[in-house]
Amino acid sequence: MAIEASRESAPARIRLGMVGGGKDAFIGAVHRIAARLDGEFELVAGALSSTPARARESGRLLGLAEDRVYDSFREMAAREKRLRNGIEAVAIVTPNDVHYEAAREFLKRGIHVICDKPLTATLSDARRLAALAEKSDALFILTHNYTGYPMVRQAREMIAAGELGDLRLVQVEYVQDWLTEPLERTGAKQAEWRTDPARSGAGGAVGDIGTHAFNLATFVTGLTLTSLSADLDSFVEGRRLDDNAHVLMRFAGGAKGMLWASQVAPGNENGLKLRVYGTRGGIEWCQEEPNRLWFTPFGKPKTLLTRGGAGAGAAAQRMTRTPAGHPEGYLEGFANIYAEAARAILARREGRPIPPDVVYPTVADGVAGVAFIEACVRSSKRNAAWVTL
Amino acid sequence: MAIEASRESAPARIRLGMVGGGKDAFIGAVHRIAARLDGEFELVAGALSSTPARARESGRLLGLAEDRVYDSFREMAAREKRLRNGIEAVAIVTPNDVHYEAAREFLKRGIHVICDKPLTATLSDARRLAALAEKSDALFILTHNYTGYPMVRQAREMIAAGELGDLRLVQVEYVQDWLTEPLERTGAKQAEWRTDPARSGAGGAVGDIGTHAFNLATFVTGLTLTSLSADLDSFVEGRRLDDNAHVLMRFAGGAKGMLWASQVAPGNENGLKLRVYGTRGGIEWCQEEPNRLWFTPFGKPKTLLTRGGAGAGAAAQRMTRTPAGHPEGYLEGFANIYAEAARAILARREGRPIPPDVVYPTVADGVAGVAFIEACVRSSKRNAAWVTL
Amino acid sequence: MAIEASRESAPARIRLGMVGGGKDAFIGAVHRIAARLDGEFELVAGALSSTPARARESGRLLGLAEDRVYDSFREMAAREKRLRNGIEAVAIVTPNDVHYEAAREFLKRGIHVICDKPLTATLSDARRLAALAEKSDALFILTHNYTGYPMVRQAREMIAAGELGDLRLVQVEYVQDWLTEPLERTGAKQAEWRTDPARSGAGGAVGDIGTHAFNLATFVTGLTLTSLSADLDSFVEGRRLDDNAHVLMRFAGGAKGMLWASQVAPGNENGLKLRVYGTRGGIEWCQEEPNRLWFTPFGKPKTLLTRGGAGAGAAAQRMTRTPAGHPEGYLEGFANIYAEAARAILARREGRPIPPDVVYPTVADGVAGVAFIEACVRSSKRNAAWVTL
Amino acid sequence: MAIEASRESAPARIRLGMVGGGKDAFIGAVHRIAARLDGEFELVAGALSSTPARARESGRLLGLAEDRVYDSFREMAAREKRLRNGIEAVAIVTPNDVHYEAAREFLKRGIHVICDKPLTATLSDARRLAALAEKSDALFILTHNYTGYPMVRQAREMIAAGELGDLRLVQVEYVQDWLTEPLERTGAKQAEWRTDPARSGAGGAVGDIGTHAFNLATFVTGLTLTSLSADLDSFVEGRRLDDNAHVLMRFAGGAKGMLWASQVAPGNENGLKLRVYGTRGGIEWCQEEPNRLWFTPFGKPKTLLTRGGAGAGAAAQRMTRTPAGHPEGYLEGFANIYAEAARAILARREGRPIPPDVVYPTVADGVAGVAFIEACVRSSKRNAAWVTL
Repeated sequence: MAIEASRESAPARIRLGMVGGGKDAFIGAVHRIAARLDGEFELVAGALSSTPARARESGRLLGLAEDRVYDSFREMAAREKRLRNGIEAVAIVTPNDVHYEAAREFLKRGIHVICDKPLTATLSDARRLAALAEKSDALFILTHNYTGYPMVRQAREMIAAGELGDLRLVQVEYVQDWLTEPLERTGAKQAEWRTDPARSGAGGAVGDIGTHAFNLATFVTGLTLTSLSADLDSFVEGRRLDDNAHVLMRFAGGAKGMLWASQVAPGNENGLKLRVYGTRGGIEWCQEEPNRLWFTPFGKPKTLLTRGGAGAGAAAQRMTRTPAGHPEGYLEGFANIYAEAARAILARREGRPIPPDVVYPTVADGVAGVAFIEACVRSSKRNAAWVTL
Repeated sequence: MAIEASRESAPARIRLGMVGGGKDAFIGAVHRIAARLDGEFELVAGALSSTPARARESGRLLGLAEDRVYDSFREMAAREKRLRNGIEAVAIVTPNDVHYEAAREFLKRGIHVICDKPLTATLSDARRLAALAEKSDALFILTHNYTGYPMVRQAREMIAAGELGDLRLVQVEYVQDWLTEPLERTGAKQAEWRTDPARSGAGGAVGDIGTHAFNLATFVTGLTLTSLSADLDSFVEGRRLDDNAHVLMRFAGGAKGMLWASQVAPGNENGLKLRVYGTRGGIEWCQEEPNRLWFTPFGKPKTLLTRGGAGAGAAAQRMTRTPAGHPEGYLEGFANIYAEAARAILARREGRPIPPDVVYPTVADGVAGVAFIEACVRSSKRNAAWVTL
Repeated sequence: MAIEASRESAPARIRLGMVGGGKDAFIGAVHRIAARLDGEFELVAGALSSTPARARESGRLLGLAEDRVYDSFREMAAREKRLRNGIEAVAIVTPNDVHYEAAREFLKRGIHVICDKPLTATLSDARRLAALAEKSDALFILTHNYTGYPMVRQAREMIAAGELGDLRLVQVEYVQDWLTEPLERTGAKQAEWRTDPARSGAGGAVGDIGTHAFNLATFVTGLTLTSLSADLDSFVEGRRLDDNAHVLMRFAGGAKGMLWASQVAPGNENGLKLRVYGTRGGIEWCQEEPNRLWFTPFGKPKTLLTRGGAGAGAAAQRMTRTPAGHPEGYLEGFANIYAEAARAILARREGRPIPPDVVYPTVADGVAGVAFIEACVRSSKRNAAWVTL
Repeated sequence: MAIEASRESAPARIRLGMVGGGKDAFIGAVHRIAARLDGEFELVAGALSSTPARARESGRLLGLAEDRVYDSFREMAAREKRLRNGIEAVAIVTPNDVHYEAAREFLKRGIHVICDKPLTATLSDARRLAALAEKSDALFILTHNYTGYPMVRQAREMIAAGELGDLRLVQVEYVQDWLTEPLERTGAKQAEWRTDPARSGAGGAVGDIGTHAFNLATFVTGLTLTSLSADLDSFVEGRRLDDNAHVLMRFAGGAKGMLWASQVAPGNENGLKLRVYGTRGGIEWCQEEPNRLWFTPFGKPKTLLTRGGAGAGAAAQRMTRTPAGHPEGYLEGFANIYAEAARAILARREGRPIPPDVVYPTVADGVAGVAFIEACVRSSKRNAAWVTL
């Protein structure tokens, strides 16, 4: 995209609402920056908290007009639909258990949904949501944000082009340490809901970050997971959801994989790492150094491809804002999902087909993610037996 | 700042104009993203190019109102001053030779100036501009953006707190490779003006990136450069400005240093690296991995301090948007300069004193930078003789 | 040991024989350098090949006396035992299937055995060998050489001292790429025997390098593996042994682990990497950068411990030859096994007890390794069912 | 050399003597391991200390025959020359001030000299020694050991082959921290003599490690230094020799360089690093990760060449003992100098010409090194004026 989306015209900004993301929320603020970074969205309405007073205060701090700060997403969906300049899209950034009901309200009114992951707290909700999305004219974008990194796109493009040959191995891990101790008992909100089955669903680490790892692996490789064997643990006493997941994977076509998700591994901040190997070469990418992609053609020296550098191809270039050596990070990667969403939404607004190079995670990816969580939980309960997906 | 500037109220956005930064410009687009990222500025006017047609088209692509797209910065300064909701601040992102005249127009009308570096093309201009800024009520912010990185702030705070003891050594380098060949003869605009003495001033690499290195070194250490010896080269035949600079430095108090700036070192993308050593410890920071700061207390193991991590202090935390392991990059660092500017500008707007923890490079830093350039050029012409600053 | 083993006297060198390791063998040459490095062994006899002409030529090239170059290890064991200055120890460096019979000949004559890993080609051989070793007065040293690296000793010492708290997770991998293509069909001797069940036993990658990974993990952590689930593959068509192994592990006390061994992952040279996490901290070590050990106490910054550096404890120091920053490598680590063996053998020669700080892998470690291989193979045949060890 | 020097025959080991290197010496022990590693030398005599009792004890600990342990190098040279199996070569590992006189005794008797660096304590001694060496039939090998690293040979070969084009820039540094405090006043022998002008000569850090950096730079690039400007400091109060050196360099043909040598930079263990840039590409090598060489052809992605890996050429291969990923270190690099010496000495013994691919630092390199030291000291005394070499 070069440093700014090059465009032929300057369309009016996309009017965006938000469900969740009130004061002190983490991911809501990330979505807002992502929406703002390229100047293509404008946040104009919000149902920012299920606590009305908190919703109001949050709306005020964000500078929203008072009459567009809502106490509930139902109210917001209904009223915004009737406004002449009501929202065109909504970002849903609540805990997982709210995703389904919130998304339904907007989808059925034709308002595009940008939803945080995992898709829902249960697989049945996920499937119902997918059915709704299919019937709706509105778009559904799932923010598996790591797919927005340019060098992740580069890896995907190289694999699709056959540069790794036939794929054999996928090693993916997403490792953190912030739940090494029972943080959820100290009043930390992020820890509370993410370890609470009622709000998160059946998966702990495997749901929160394991789905990111799984999504990244399949996004990059294009492989289909056919069965898995999972050994989940809750190492912290009294924790109700897993905080560590060891998963063996088998893919259609014979490739094999391992996935490790952990929130109890001291010294790891946000260690999402993907390695893929085929008959002709291997690649390695790590989220904490997102501007770099290692590539080794078998029998040749290892090369370091950099975002914006000599070896970056078209898929990476269209996601790139700054030149090589001017690092992009998490927010830029996240913003790329919003940039893709904007291109699709504007196409819809203008009655054009969505440009063929636009790529974003969809409701189908969301269903796959929740199916992955449930399969892991099921396998683990049966002593890591193989479970078919 | 946590993920979003926490604030007690939601003040109206700062109305921003821009001089330069038309279609295809690099640094203008960076300034716009930086201004947008925290939602505290709104770009409402521009004199985006000295070519009127280009200015118009650029304004249209940015969605500016037609009557606030100007053919010249003089016209913009004059008219905006008269508007009820005219711009409160202007970003000047032209080649260096225009900085002085543009800044003058806004400063004298009390409009805050956010200006790209180096300050001016000549030292006399720099000094005149400093005098103007001193007399003006308006603020002057120089975008030595690398001072906005959280771990640069961390390094500065640690040194001020004495964690390195008495400083002895400063090794700084800023190394690129994009001018290894005569790119300026291929029509590349960035290369053209940056190698043209009329537009860049007396310094080539030493001005474009050497000043960043020098600024970073003094910002972090608090040291004052007293003399230098510089050996400049133009390795590419026919190039009119230096493309490589080797500089020895002597600081007040006895510390010594080396500075290397190059644009002809293949394999280096944007390699700004600072190392500082004192009687009690050493630090190392590299722009291409900006979320990390190495610190070794003498006689103890090396530690890796990370942005958002356990060892990050107050100065870094207030510049931090995302948690540890969620990398921030160049644009976030740049946006931090805008965030600091916003805090100062809003304080002025509201008649409050500027909060004491607000830090940004000033016109004085700009004068020091241009003095550094001229001293390097002078020393080099005299066979690298020592030149006093 | 400082740069040379500090010692009170200069005992006569240990007279060493070798079985296997003829011309062009890889590991035999490594053993010879390891034996030579500290000047405590002297190679005086050899049954270097099962092909007499090759044995003779190899002996000549190594400068052995003609009458101490043997056609078979049986002949060597018998005759050397009778010599007044016959060998005191023998290094067995043949393919795995010969280990048992060769070791038996020397053990039963009281000649110390230094044997390459894995211990034997079958578990029954391993157990018989262990029984023989137990009855023998001779020592049995298994060259799981990676346990000789100083920073591996450091990790082990830290864990034993409780610096990681209660252990939860062990992630270990040993990854190579040299068998990505069917190298065994090109006449490459190393590839031939390592993929031949008759010479290697039931394990391919899992035997050749998986046992190293398993041994390293248990050596460092002190944990006991209780059960495993393994998914082995032969990705290269026609290959008779596995070239990739994915293993889930459960340890006594509740720790869990993953082990990945592969010889078909392009871009990996000799990637043995161990990560261990407990309630109080985590460590990370990688064989390709053996002088470094990462240690993160939970809630504190990551530290980089270096061989010879400020944080290195007693266990590492006694294995250290050169100062910090003067890298030691594979051969020094290997030589450390020989250095430990020498200390034990000299103690026996002189009728002293073996010093309590001498540590080397034993026949029991060898049995555990072969049991690991067989459990992996068994599990994999049963669709990765859990197998108890 | 593959894992062991491949050879057609097994010549008798080269009989080696040693001057210096008694108990507790550092570099003497390194030389002994280096000599032993490939099994081509046998230490048979020594004048290990100028203190007779210490010389005797050291000889006993090394297992030397009593009648070949000498009280002085003069006695050793004279008597060994008369023995039928007297030494063929001598390793001189004393402080610098003894090198000249010791070397003279052996050279004039036709005994090959392997001498530690820097060559001598004064330039006049260096020149006299060079004259002696030229007249002598004996070989003179200077152990600038870093030239023995395979990837240093690789870099040299690539530059000679033109892969970097015309050279423009040489950045070299050798940085340590062990003299950050006045260690020489605590009784530490290594610190004492290395900071004592009487034993070290005119250079402190610049002599001890700056010469290594200078030698490495010229060895790899083939460039000739024509002039330099040096700013030396003794940061530790009372220290009589420099502990930090900043040097600008100009080479014949127009290339420029910077050299930094320091022993007071906390966090640096043995940081010898070389970067070279030309019109067509750049390379980077760091002694603490010696098995890796970064190479970037201009306009292409960076590649990582590894010792033993796909990109390693003939010059690196002949210095390589273990396969890729099995790290070699400082001792192997040092041993490579001995391996080259052995090939030359054996050629002389057998009356053959020295094979053309044998490369080692010579007395001429030694003279250049001492000239470099003296030029730095001279320049620094004249306020870093340019000094011609």
